[in-house]
Amino acid sequence: MEKVAIGIDIGGTNTTIGFVNQQGEILRKSSVKTSTNPDISTFIKEIYDCIEENLKAANNLSIEGIGIGAPNGNYYQGTIEHAPNLAWKGIVNLTDEFSKLTPKPVFVTNDANAAAMGEMLFGNAKEMKNFVVITLGTGLGSGFVVNGDILYGHDGFAGELGHTIVQVDGRSCGCGRKGCLETYVSAPGICRTAISILEKSTQKSVLRDYTKETLNSEIIFNAAKANDEIALKAFDFTANILGKELADMIAITSPEAIFLFGGLAYSGKYIFEPTQKYIEEYIHNIFRNKVKLLPSGLPENDAAILGAAALAWNELKK
Amino acid sequence: MEKVAIGIDIGGTNTTIGFVNQQGEILRKSSVKTSTNPDISTFIKEIYDCIEENLKAANNLSIEGIGIGAPNGNYYQGTIEHAPNLAWKGIVNLTDEFSKLTPKPVFVTNDANAAAMGEMLFGNAKEMKNFVVITLGTGLGSGFVVNGDILYGHDGFAGELGHTIVQVDGRSCGCGRKGCLETYVSAPGICRTAISILEKSTQKSVLRDYTKETLNSEIIFNAAKANDEIALKAFDFTANILGKELADMIAITSPEAIFLFGGLAYSGKYIFEPTQKYIEEYIHNIFRNKVKLLPSGLPENDAAILGAAALAWNELKK
Repeated sequence: MEKVAIGIDIGGTNTTIGFVNQQGEILRKSSVKTSTNPDISTFIKEIYDCIEENLKAANNLSIEGIGIGAPNGNYYQGTIEHAPNLAWKGIVNLTDEFSKLTPKPVFVTNDANAAAMGEMLFGNAKEMKNFVVITLGTGLGSGFVVNGDILYGHDGFAGELGHTIVQVDGRSCGCGRKGCLETYVSAPGICRTAISILEKSTQKSVLRDYTKETLNSEIIFNAAKANDEIALKAFDFTANILGKELADMIAITSPEAIFLFGGLAYSGKYIFEPTQKYIEEYIHNIFRNKVKLLPSGLPENDAAILGAAALAWNELKK
Repeated sequence: MEKVAIGIDIGGTNTTIGFVNQQGEILRKSSVKTSTNPDISTFIKEIYDCIEENLKAANNLSIEGIGIGAPNGNYYQGTIEHAPNLAWKGIVNLTDEFSKLTPKPVFVTNDANAAAMGEMLFGNAKEMKNFVVITLGTGLGSGFVVNGDILYGHDGFAGELGHTIVQVDGRSCGCGRKGCLETYVSAPGICRTAISILEKSTQKSVLRDYTKETLNSEIIFNAAKANDEIALKAFDFTANILGKELADMIAITSPEAIFLFGGLAYSGKYIFEPTQKYIEEYIHNIFRNKVKLLPSGLPENDAAILGAAALAWNELKK
């Protein structure tokens, strides 16, 4: 029998379930539609049935524990709390639901924290004890690792770097406030920046062929590769804001490295090089040229289940 | 024999040595002039002689360990590194020097981290595992406690909240950069603010009787108590900047409470009330009305040695 941890990634549309060994190999993988039914019990039962089917089919796997990454996942409570894009309103308790079905230990955290655990156990942070993972997707998530463990804070919700305010009365944010980092630094954020630069300038740009609705960060990336000035300016503006926030964050937490993960991070040198430059420009002397800005070592498609499984493996070691 | 930890506070002018029991009682206290001699060995020997004299005189104390709080003190290395106001240039190793004189364990950290340990063991954070201490003196120091231990980060220098940049190209800072939080939020910071408000206004104020050289934060505090509008505006401006930075810091570390300590914190409601108000204004919903802003529970004059001794007691528990 091979020991595995189950890594579950609950997304807005799909929920993916991976059987991951201690080396970070995904031995089996399944997915179910994320329930739109407000009753969490039936959904957890569906996930558990899927796990059992896989166990039977494999016939050589032994489950050690279950890790779950979910939006607004709370490690301390084992809950999802007020997740805007999921069917369950208020607070639902995942560990309680699983405990009705299995005695195996269940651990819950949010997506960005799971990504950080994945990076530590299976990615590019293997020898590190103090680092940060920034996920650049539709929003900006962050997972902070301190002394080899996730920084959860008092209530389990630490690591909301995306909701630090970089511009008082700045861009409207989904959180209801204005000027949050993620309104500037994220896939939609760089699109808002490009649109705004286009509006203020008369410079030629391939980006003028797109509207607010059709523009996306990949188009800006491709334009930057073709040396489109507006696209390059959009990356520079984004990197300037990110670099300053990372410099301030470094002054607080002093990580060994910062990993960029997700959509915008795949823009490679167009985001990494100017961000590193601005970090060094804004940073306090004692941290200068010390903190590495690195790409994630996790495969994009499996990062979420690897991270969730890593959470379980890390907890089981304790 | 009563067990004590030695708490040593190395300041710019004086070095204070306290014999502190596990209840936080200072059983003996001495001080020596901080050496202006670049040779650290002779200074450590002087401190150690002072400890031995006290031990002889008391005749009933047993030393368990030694904690040292010093500017730019590095916990990992046991060193003071590049402290601008001390005679020892570069890096001096305190634990090495003490180990020539005594086999007792020696722990080093900076002043703000020592204050945080003091707060946890002997002050107002006794039941807390995640909190922050902000020291508001000639600068702004900060000590972050995460899971009951100081957040040191990768290199030992985490917790430099005073050197996050709140205003790009803002006020010149002693660190060589511009716009650092401590140039606005500190005893000299509020004086710079008051001077700047006075320059822009024609409003009457008792603060007009002072110059840049003679104004201090206590004068502004006393003026605020007498309802001087300029003084009240200076506190409001300071609290606005501090409140925003604390809201951003809370989003990263999610502490249970924030303690204000030192000079400016003794302005009581004039700093606490507007700062709490601005925190709630700027903060992300999930943290709203959750994080307490509290005064330190340590006596001002002995906080530094209590903190240094608390560091030793906390390490000895491990």
